[in-house]
Amino acid sequence: MGIEIDVNSVSQEIYQLISALYPICRSITGDGVRKTLNFVQQHISLALHEVKTGTPVFDWTVPKEWNIRDAYIKNSRGEKIIDFQKLNLHVLNYSLPVNQKIQLEELKKHLISIPDKPDWVPYRTSYYKETWGFCLSHNQLLQIQDDEYEVYIDSTLEDGSLTYGEYFIPGETDEEVLISCHTCHPSLANDNLAGIALTTFLAQYLSQLKLKYSYRFIFIPGTIGSITWLARNEANVDKIKHGLVVTCIGDPGKSHYKKSRRGNAEIDKAAIHVLQRSGQDFVIQEFSPYGYDERQYCSPGFNLPVGCFMRSPHGTYPQYHTSADNLELVKPEYLADSLTKFLAVLNIIENNKKYLNQNPKCEPMLGKRGLYSAIGGQTDTKKRELAMLWVLNMSDGESSLLDIAEKSDLEFDLIKETADTLQQFNLLKEC
Amino acid sequence: MGIEIDVNSVSQEIYQLISALYPICRSITGDGVRKTLNFVQQHISLALHEVKTGTPVFDWTVPKEWNIRDAYIKNSRGEKIIDFQKLNLHVLNYSLPVNQKIQLEELKKHLISIPDKPDWVPYRTSYYKETWGFCLSHNQLLQIQDDEYEVYIDSTLEDGSLTYGEYFIPGETDEEVLISCHTCHPSLANDNLAGIALTTFLAQYLSQLKLKYSYRFIFIPGTIGSITWLARNEANVDKIKHGLVVTCIGDPGKSHYKKSRRGNAEIDKAAIHVLQRSGQDFVIQEFSPYGYDERQYCSPGFNLPVGCFMRSPHGTYPQYHTSADNLELVKPEYLADSLTKFLAVLNIIENNKKYLNQNPKCEPMLGKRGLYSAIGGQTDTKKRELAMLWVLNMSDGESSLLDIAEKSDLEFDLIKETADTLQQFNLLKEC
Amino acid sequence: MGIEIDVNSVSQEIYQLISALYPICRSITGDGVRKTLNFVQQHISLALHEVKTGTPVFDWTVPKEWNIRDAYIKNSRGEKIIDFQKLNLHVLNYSLPVNQKIQLEELKKHLISIPDKPDWVPYRTSYYKETWGFCLSHNQLLQIQDDEYEVYIDSTLEDGSLTYGEYFIPGETDEEVLISCHTCHPSLANDNLAGIALTTFLAQYLSQLKLKYSYRFIFIPGTIGSITWLARNEANVDKIKHGLVVTCIGDPGKSHYKKSRRGNAEIDKAAIHVLQRSGQDFVIQEFSPYGYDERQYCSPGFNLPVGCFMRSPHGTYPQYHTSADNLELVKPEYLADSLTKFLAVLNIIENNKKYLNQNPKCEPMLGKRGLYSAIGGQTDTKKRELAMLWVLNMSDGESSLLDIAEKSDLEFDLIKETADTLQQFNLLKEC
Repeated sequence: MGIEIDVNSVSQEIYQLISALYPICRSITGDGVRKTLNFVQQHISLALHEVKTGTPVFDWTVPKEWNIRDAYIKNSRGEKIIDFQKLNLHVLNYSLPVNQKIQLEELKKHLISIPDKPDWVPYRTSYYKETWGFCLSHNQLLQIQDDEYEVYIDSTLEDGSLTYGEYFIPGETDEEVLISCHTCHPSLANDNLAGIALTTFLAQYLSQLKLKYSYRFIFIPGTIGSITWLARNEANVDKIKHGLVVTCIGDPGKSHYKKSRRGNAEIDKAAIHVLQRSGQDFVIQEFSPYGYDERQYCSPGFNLPVGCFMRSPHGTYPQYHTSADNLELVKPEYLADSLTKFLAVLNIIENNKKYLNQNPKCEPMLGKRGLYSAIGGQTDTKKRELAMLWVLNMSDGESSLLDIAEKSDLEFDLIKETADTLQQFNLLKEC
Repeated sequence: MGIEIDVNSVSQEIYQLISALYPICRSITGDGVRKTLNFVQQHISLALHEVKTGTPVFDWTVPKEWNIRDAYIKNSRGEKIIDFQKLNLHVLNYSLPVNQKIQLEELKKHLISIPDKPDWVPYRTSYYKETWGFCLSHNQLLQIQDDEYEVYIDSTLEDGSLTYGEYFIPGETDEEVLISCHTCHPSLANDNLAGIALTTFLAQYLSQLKLKYSYRFIFIPGTIGSITWLARNEANVDKIKHGLVVTCIGDPGKSHYKKSRRGNAEIDKAAIHVLQRSGQDFVIQEFSPYGYDERQYCSPGFNLPVGCFMRSPHGTYPQYHTSADNLELVKPEYLADSLTKFLAVLNIIENNKKYLNQNPKCEPMLGKRGLYSAIGGQTDTKKRELAMLWVLNMSDGESSLLDIAEKSDLEFDLIKETADTLQQFNLLKEC
Repeated sequence: MGIEIDVNSVSQEIYQLISALYPICRSITGDGVRKTLNFVQQHISLALHEVKTGTPVFDWTVPKEWNIRDAYIKNSRGEKIIDFQKLNLHVLNYSLPVNQKIQLEELKKHLISIPDKPDWVPYRTSYYKETWGFCLSHNQLLQIQDDEYEVYIDSTLEDGSLTYGEYFIPGETDEEVLISCHTCHPSLANDNLAGIALTTFLAQYLSQLKLKYSYRFIFIPGTIGSITWLARNEANVDKIKHGLVVTCIGDPGKSHYKKSRRGNAEIDKAAIHVLQRSGQDFVIQEFSPYGYDERQYCSPGFNLPVGCFMRSPHGTYPQYHTSADNLELVKPEYLADSLTKFLAVLNIIENNKKYLNQNPKCEPMLGKRGLYSAIGGQTDTKKRELAMLWVLNMSDGESSLLDIAEKSDLEFDLIKETADTLQQFNLLKEC
C-alpha cells in the first residue's frame, strides 16, 4: 500500500475530531447530522445525500426530519432543573415540541432514568412513536420535589430529508470494500463518534494510496440509514467484496470482531488473522442478527460479506448509551490500536492473492538464486527460508497468501514479501 | 399439537400398566406376548399380527412358538427349591420340556447364576439352540446340596406363530414417524415393560391430536420381531422419515440418546436439542450396531433415520437382565421425565419447518406492526425481539426452525411461536 | 502377509549393519555412498544407478562428485590437532582440496563449532558453494593457540556421478508402495544409518511374502537424490499409492508421524491408527514443506501420498547433526519398536479393503452359522461378535476395514480377520 502513516499522530487528530463533534445534537435526521458531516468534509471530500421524508425504502419509509434548538424543565421558582444546553442527552431523541406547565405526577410519566447507574443520564430515542420526554440521572430524579413544572422543548418534526455522506476512492478494479459507520447518536463519544472520526482519517489515508480495490465509505444514521442506502444502491451491491461496520472503537475494551453472516468470508479470515496475531486478548463473535448496520448488510436478501469491528460491543460496557460514554472513555491510544488493526486487515485484503508455483515439480533450487543459505546442516532454518518453502509448496492456485500464512503460522506480511521475491525470480506467477 | 397432557398423572398410569404386565412370562413368541398386547389394547386399538413358524424373513426364519405353564426343581424330599411360579426368570427362556430325575452334577450343567451379583437371578435365553435350563441366584446355587433332583418344565416348542402389535395414527401426510418397542422380555420392568407402557400412553395421547406426520407404533419381539416387520413392510419403509426405539426409559439413570446410523438425521438433531436444553445431565452416543432394534432399522440395506432413546443403556446398570430389574427400579417420576422428553422431541419433529422471509432485503419494520419496542436505545433487547430477528435473518429456505433454535441458542418453542407470529403478519411463508 | 518375523533378532542385525556403515564418510555423491550401498547389497539385490554430473534434474543439476581420502590440521610442532581419520565429521562435507600453512586468524574463518554444545563436533555441508572448512568441538576451538597451522584436505571435486540404490518387489498389482531413505550423511547413526539399515531388513523381509502391492525401496542422497529420482521416474509416479520416508528411527524419542501434504491419505490414516493403538506416547505432525525428502514427493506438482516416519524429528534432539548422533544414541530396542510399527502400518495398507454386505437388509442370522453365542441375555458381548456386527453394518462399499476399525475402536487385525470369516460364509464380498 506504500505511504507510511504515523498512527499515533493520526490518533490525536481522530481524538480532536471526536471532541469537535461531541457537543452536536445528532439524530437519524436533521441539522446535527449535516453539521457533523460538514466537519468530516474538512478532511475528505464527502458527498452529502438528502433523501426526502416519505420516500419508501424497502419495508420502511424515510421519517420526518427532526430538529431541536432548546429544551428545559423549570421549577416554579423559574430554575432550570434540566437543561438541553448542558447535555443534549437530556431530551428524548425525536421528542415532539412541548411548552406547558404540569404537575410532578404528570411530568414523571415523561422522565427516564437508570436506577442502577444513578449518576448517569441515559440516551433514549422514540423515532417511530410520537411523544416527548426527558432523560436524567436517577439521583436528579430522586431530588425532584412536588411542584408545578414548566416543560419546554423547542423542536420541530416536519417533512424534510434524511442526510447521509458517501466517499468513494476508485481502485484498480471496480470491486469494492465497504466501510460503514453510523452518525445518529448525539453526545456519545465511543458510540459512535470514534467510529465516524476513525473512518474519516482512514479514508483520508487510503485516498493517498494506489489500491487494488475501490473503497466506499458511508456515514449513515443507524438502521434507517443503511436501509435507505441499500434501497438506493441495490443494483451495485454485488461489487462489494468485503465490508466492515465500524463502531465503538475508542474505549479501553479488548477488540471484538463479529463475523459476517457467511461466517467464512475473506474479511472474516483476515480480521481473525490480525486479532490472533495481535498479541492481545480479543474476541471473535459469530454472526447474530442483532447489533449495528451489519443487520441490514447481512439480511438474507443481501448476505454481503460485511463484518463488524468493535472494542467493547454494544450493551456490554457500563457506559453504553449513557452520559458516561464521553470524552474520558475514549482515548487516543485505543484509537491508535484500532486504526493499526484496521490497516492490518485492509493490508491483507489488498494483498491476498493466489499464485502458481512455476516449478511445481520438486523444490526449485533456491541456492543458485542466492535465496537459500549456503551452509547446510544447521539446526535453525531461517523464517524467511521457511516462508519460501511454504509459499512454493502451497501455491497451486487453490490457496491464498492468507491461507498460507494461517497454515504456516507465519505473519501475513512475511508471506506476502516472500511471494513478491519469488515472483521477481519468476518462481511464482499470480493467477 | 394442541391438547394438554398431565404428564405426572399419565406416568402413574404408565406405572400401573407396567405393574399389570410384570408377572406375565413373555418370550419372542407365545401367549405371554398375546396377553401383554391384550393389555395394551385396553388403551389403544392395537392390531395384532400373527406370522407363522417357518416363514422366511430375510436371512432368518420365524421360529417355533414357545409356551410354558409351569416349571420347578424339587429335591429328594419333594421340596421345590426353584419355582417358576414365584419368578418366571427361573426358567431359561425357550427351554424344552423336561421331566426327569438327575443327580446334582448333571443338574449343574443346566444351572445359570451370576457370581458377581449373588442375590439376583439372571435372565437368559436360548432361542436358537434347543436345550433347557434354570436360572437362580448364586447364593441359591451355593446352597444346593448333593442330592437327586426332579426337574420339571411344562413347556411346548411347536409350530405356531410370532405375534406383534401395530398401531397407526394417520396424519396430514403419509410420511411416518416410527416408534418401536420390544415385547419379548419376561419379568423385567425397565427392559422393556417401561418402554411398552410409555409407548402405549404416548400413542393414546397422540391419537387425540391433529398431526402433520402419520405415526406407526410397533410392539415386537427384539431382533426377530423387527426383522419380521421389516420383511413384511419392506415396500413401505421409505415413508419412515423419523423413528425412535424406546427402551429402558423408567430407571433413575440419566437420559441417553443413541444416534441413527446416519448420525445427522433430523430425529438426531431434535433429540440432542431436547437433551441439551433439559438442564439435566445426558449422554449422546454415536451409532453402533449393537443394542436394540435400531440394529435392524439401521442395517445398511435400510439405513432408516431411527435413533434409540434410553435412560440407562443395556448392560450398563447393575440390575440389567436380572431379577433386580423390577418394579422398584422403575419409578413414575423417571417415566414422567422420559415422556416429557419424548413429547418435546416429537413437538420439534412436528413443527420443524422451513420458511422464506418475505422481506429478505433489510429487516422489515417490525415497529409499525406493533412487534417491536417503541423506545430505542435500551440495553436489554427482549428475547422475543431477538427471536424475530433470528427467524427473519435465517429464513432463506435453507435453515429449519430447529437450525435457527440451535444457532440462536433460543428455545425451539419460542422460535416456533415467533415464526407463527411472523407468518400471521405475512413476513414469513412456509416453503 | 504370512511369514513370521523375529523383530528382536532382526533389530540386532539392523544394529550390526548400522555399526558397519558408521565409519564410512558419505556425502551426496562419491565412493562413500557406493560402499554403503554395497553393504546393503549383502542383504537385498539392490540395483545401483549412476547419474552423471551435469545432468539437469528439474530446476537442479547433478553436482560434481566429491571424494575424500584424508584431512588434518597440524600445528607448528607437527601435531595433528584435527584428524579426519578419527572422525569424518571434522571435514566440512564437500570441502575443496587444500594444502597450505596459515596463521590462526585466517584458519578461524574455516572452523565451525557449536558454543552451546562444547563437547560435540558439528556436521556441516557446503554442497553448492565451493569452499573448505573443518568442524570441531567448541572446547577444541578454545584450546587452539596462536600458531602457524598446516591445513590439509586430500579431496577431489570432479565430474563423476550421483549414486543411488533401488530395489523393487513385484506384488499382485503394479500399484506401488514407496519406501525412501537418505544415504548422504557421514558418521551419523540415527540420521540416517538407522533408516538405511531398517529399510534394508524391511525390504529383505517383505521380499519373502506374497504382497498385494509392489514395493519400491530407494536409497538416495537427500534433496538432490529424490529430485533426481523423480526426474528420472516422472512417468511412473502415478503408480505410487502410498509412501513413507524413513528417518531417525533408532533413538529413544517417541514416534512421530508427519502427514503427507494431502493430510488424509490412506497411509496417513494407517500410520495414525497404528500410533494411536500403540499404547505409547506419539506425535502426529501436520505436513510442512520442511524436513526430508517428503518435501520433494509432496511438492505441488507431484503431491504424492507420502508421509514421514521418525522417532525424534530433525532439529529437536540435542545430538542432531553432531558427533553425538552415534552408536550409543541408537539402540536395538528402539529399532525393534520402529520396525514393529512399520510392519503394522504396511499390514493395514496391504489388507485395507472395502466389502459389500451380502445380506444388507437386517443382520444375517449369525447363530445358524455357528458365528454367534447361543445363550442370549448376557451382559458382555464378545469382541469378536461386536466386530462382526460392525463389519456387516458398515460394509456398504463406502467404508474400508480401517474406517471400520476406527469407528468401532477395535483393532485392525480383528476387523480384518472378521471380514475374512464373514467372506468365507458368503456374508461379505470384496468390492
